[in-house]
Amino acid sequence: MTVKVSQTADVQSFFKEAAGFNNNSGSPRLKSIVLRVLQDTAKIVEDLQITENEFWFAVDYLNRLGGRGEAGLLVAGLGIEHFLDLLQDAKDNEIGLSGGTPRTIEGPLYVAGAPVHNGFARMDDGTEEGAATTMFLEGQVLDLEGNPVAGATVDLWHANTRGTYSFFDQSQSEFNLRRRIITDADGRYRAQSIVPSGYGCDPKGPTQECLDLLGRHGQRPAHIHFFISAPGYRHLTTQINLSGDKYLWDDFAYATRDGLVGEVVFRDDGQRDVTGRYAELQFNFQLQPSADTSAEQRSSRPRALQ
Amino acid sequence: MTVKVSQTADVQSFFKEAAGFNNNSGSPRLKSIVLRVLQDTAKIVEDLQITENEFWFAVDYLNRLGGRGEAGLLVAGLGIEHFLDLLQDAKDNEIGLSGGTPRTIEGPLYVAGAPVHNGFARMDDGTEEGAATTMFLEGQVLDLEGNPVAGATVDLWHANTRGTYSFFDQSQSEFNLRRRIITDADGRYRAQSIVPSGYGCDPKGPTQECLDLLGRHGQRPAHIHFFISAPGYRHLTTQINLSGDKYLWDDFAYATRDGLVGEVVFRDDGQRDVTGRYAELQFNFQLQPSADTSAEQRSSRPRALQ
Repeated sequence: MTVKVSQTADVQSFFKEAAGFNNNSGSPRLKSIVLRVLQDTAKIVEDLQITENEFWFAVDYLNRLGGRGEAGLLVAGLGIEHFLDLLQDAKDNEIGLSGGTPRTIEGPLYVAGAPVHNGFARMDDGTEEGAATTMFLEGQVLDLEGNPVAGATVDLWHANTRGTYSFFDQSQSEFNLRRRIITDADGRYRAQSIVPSGYGCDPKGPTQECLDLLGRHGQRPAHIHFFISAPGYRHLTTQINLSGDKYLWDDFAYATRDGLVGEVVFRDDGQRDVTGRYAELQFNFQLQPSADTSAEQRSSRPRALQ
Repeated sequence: MTVKVSQTADVQSFFKEAAGFNNNSGSPRLKSIVLRVLQDTAKIVEDLQITENEFWFAVDYLNRLGGRGEAGLLVAGLGIEHFLDLLQDAKDNEIGLSGGTPRTIEGPLYVAGAPVHNGFARMDDGTEEGAATTMFLEGQVLDLEGNPVAGATVDLWHANTRGTYSFFDQSQSEFNLRRRIITDADGRYRAQSIVPSGYGCDPKGPTQECLDLLGRHGQRPAHIHFFISAPGYRHLTTQINLSGDKYLWDDFAYATRDGLVGEVVFRDDGQRDVTGRYAELQFNFQLQPSADTSAEQRSSRPRALQ
């Protein structure tokens, strides 16, 4: 039979003590959260009859996960970050907020402080010329009625042809493939960059270790991340996932959503100032009006600073 | 009103996908555990209306916690490790296993491979002479009837006068204050060491950061850790917590238990081969018989190796 003690008055009282309920200092909010986590953890241990070895494996895993800074990668891979989007969608629905480009996960690889350009930016540093296909990306930022939003900030970042990101991949130059572009009077942004490859989890990292044990791969389709913001509009965190990628609808981080697939068109017609084959990608964003200025900001999630 | 989506068929099905239920590879056991963790995490987010900022603070905290290798310290400080002892006690009760020295938490600071001595060991490297009080520790390992257990391994470790542990405190010599002593024909072990000070969490570490927010201190009473093992007996993980310490019954890790308080006697009578004041501590351990050889072993918790 299964022995359980977590629901006894003694143990519940012990958890309250551990969560700081018997003192008047600290954060009442964190105390409530920690108490709930303790209660649920104990129930998981009891219900699933977690062994000592399993428990300590998990503790060691947390050390290794954090040691590699992969907690943000794991919550994406386990779908919790996508769940937060689903929950926010439902909250929006509840209060009648709808329309515009869908949100999707930020992922853990943003770096604050990328160079700012008006209207157009060259994003790649040229070091992958030859290996990479040049990509011309452009579109408009619009309101829900389709009117252009001038002066919006299109803060975008993507991987190189090896699927790695500057800053986290120290072999790349500072802010390579990371730019902030301010839309022009027509709400238009334009970028010249390179076609990214899909990101894959470090095969030796703790996130992939977990995915392996779940029988899952750790690959993403090629994609481009965006923060779109403008005064008077709700901040949008989203991604364009590139058509034709084998992982487009098999993304380990569940970021691909209807309305977020970018159709890449490859051309070899000499119409652009590049030699040979190049790619074009057009994508417009539509923003919801903001109810207040706090809605214009991204979350205060801790992020890397160059 | 509170918007919830985690119990919908779509989201439950999504969590099953994320936990690997739609493939036949990997570990069915881990899939079940991860599914439960996903379901409970989503419920916590919904029930406590965890904000985006709170969620990402927690993810960043996990990175910082693991980055400092403090996951084992946090589970001790939040009482989860003590809860595992309470649960194991209840399981023992259920099948009629009782008697002997109580178990208590191992803590995260064991290092495997300490020097082995027969009957007696000098544990300290002498570098704290002057600052430290010499401690003579001795006792017997006994069975439940009080018969001596010869050839038992008393694997003990404790902090120095600053409350820090060798290996983790690299300023100490290798295996300082860590020894394995094999009991003699009378089941007796004897050690000469120094009186330890209580351990305190790193005031700048993530565990103390959490405790601060819970209004709690991160101090332990002075104590000595033990693994006691012998063929035919159940492995015992326990501690002696020293009488007279202000934190004896206010231990942040909840390790002090009835039956585990060691009475330290300070003497200055010239009866021992040391100058001035010294301490004596006598403590006997009683072991339960083992049902099988696996019960004779400690858990396979990942531990530090010198």
